[in-house]
Amino acid sequence: MDLPCRTAAPRESLRERRRRETRDELHAAALRLSRELGFEQVTVEMISEEAGVSPRTFFNYFPSKESALLTWPASFTPEARARFLAAPARDTRSVLRDVGELFASYLEASPPRRDEVEEVFRIAERTPSVLAAVLAGFDALERELGALVAERTGRGTGDRTADLVSGVSMAAVRVAMRRWAQDHGCEQPAPEFVRESFALLKDLTSPLEEAATASS
Amino acid sequence: MDLPCRTAAPRESLRERRRRETRDELHAAALRLSRELGFEQVTVEMISEEAGVSPRTFFNYFPSKESALLTWPASFTPEARARFLAAPARDTRSVLRDVGELFASYLEASPPRRDEVEEVFRIAERTPSVLAAVLAGFDALERELGALVAERTGRGTGDRTADLVSGVSMAAVRVAMRRWAQDHGCEQPAPEFVRESFALLKDLTSPLEEAATASS
Repeated sequence: MDLPCRTAAPRESLRERRRRETRDELHAAALRLSRELGFEQVTVEMISEEAGVSPRTFFNYFPSKESALLTWPASFTPEARARFLAAPARDTRSVLRDVGELFASYLEASPPRRDEVEEVFRIAERTPSVLAAVLAGFDALERELGALVAERTGRGTGDRTADLVSGVSMAAVRVAMRRWAQDHGCEQPAPEFVRESFALLKDLTSPLEEAATASS
Repeated sequence: MDLPCRTAAPRESLRERRRRETRDELHAAALRLSRELGFEQVTVEMISEEAGVSPRTFFNYFPSKESALLTWPASFTPEARARFLAAPARDTRSVLRDVGELFASYLEASPPRRDEVEEVFRIAERTPSVLAAVLAGFDALERELGALVAERTGRGTGDRTADLVSGVSMAAVRVAMRRWAQDHGCEQPAPEFVRESFALLKDLTSPLEEAATASS
């Protein structure tokens, strides 16, 4: 392994903590109001009032009511990016493995709440603007990751293999998160779902899998 | 290969032809007006008038002005679905290969115009509602494909491996189409880009690639 499994939480300044708390409060208010009234009925004004801030402050944190609902996926921390870029292996197999660890440690550093993620996926199913925001969030992360993979592997930005590694990784993350959100029975944490998804990825194109399936 | 490379064009009734022509005309009008005025300024009324139909008729073909801009990706023909499902191999490696052929023959049966696809991608870059519609189109196709793969491989709908095969395939298709749309220099057709993308996919997790890269 090139990457350590856990990210040490960096020390937070008072200002950073206040920002995080306001952001969390706006997110919680958006979810609470959507649950009570239905997402379509909720406005930025209502979310701001519920959280005790002005709409102007709201827009310092989120560009729209959809984005307040979705605090995940966000982007990687500078430390995680640096660690990913510093790892020596440049072949796609190792890079894919490290991308899996990048996501797993991201989820370990800021664990999402299963009931919230499930609720957001459920709202997205019936609200096109929320589905669009979810997809746009994943798309933005896919581009960020594509640039990281291009840099790590010494390829130019927009390189086809780098884009493919990034797209394939995001598919693995999306499948893992959807499954984790729906998995009420067991208490397996989200990073384990991500690791399993990346392990499965490795076998998808393996000729060995062909033989195993043919004999089953 | 389990799938033939080309789809024979099915015979079209007069009614089907008229529908296709109206749809094509609405799509062309949406693109033409977006080019002249900017997409934000264009309304469903303007597109309908330009194509010589009523807004009511417009909504028989498209649910929104965004969707009129995007005639690709659509969905698979019943014949292509049946052929894909009838192929015997159930291992993921063979299924991935056949998914590549499913897309390649889809593109051969109804070839998209490169300048149009490039234009739509460009509009999507600066117009969130168009990006959302592009992403939602790919997402719908990913779900359709996931169900097809689940059926073909004898897994239940929502099976993790089936979802992963589908997600990974859509990543390969998106990378191929983006690259094809931007590739002004050469005249390689879109299906070849898709086939190359799926071939590259096969090598992403190959241990051989590791050795090849390490020595380069």
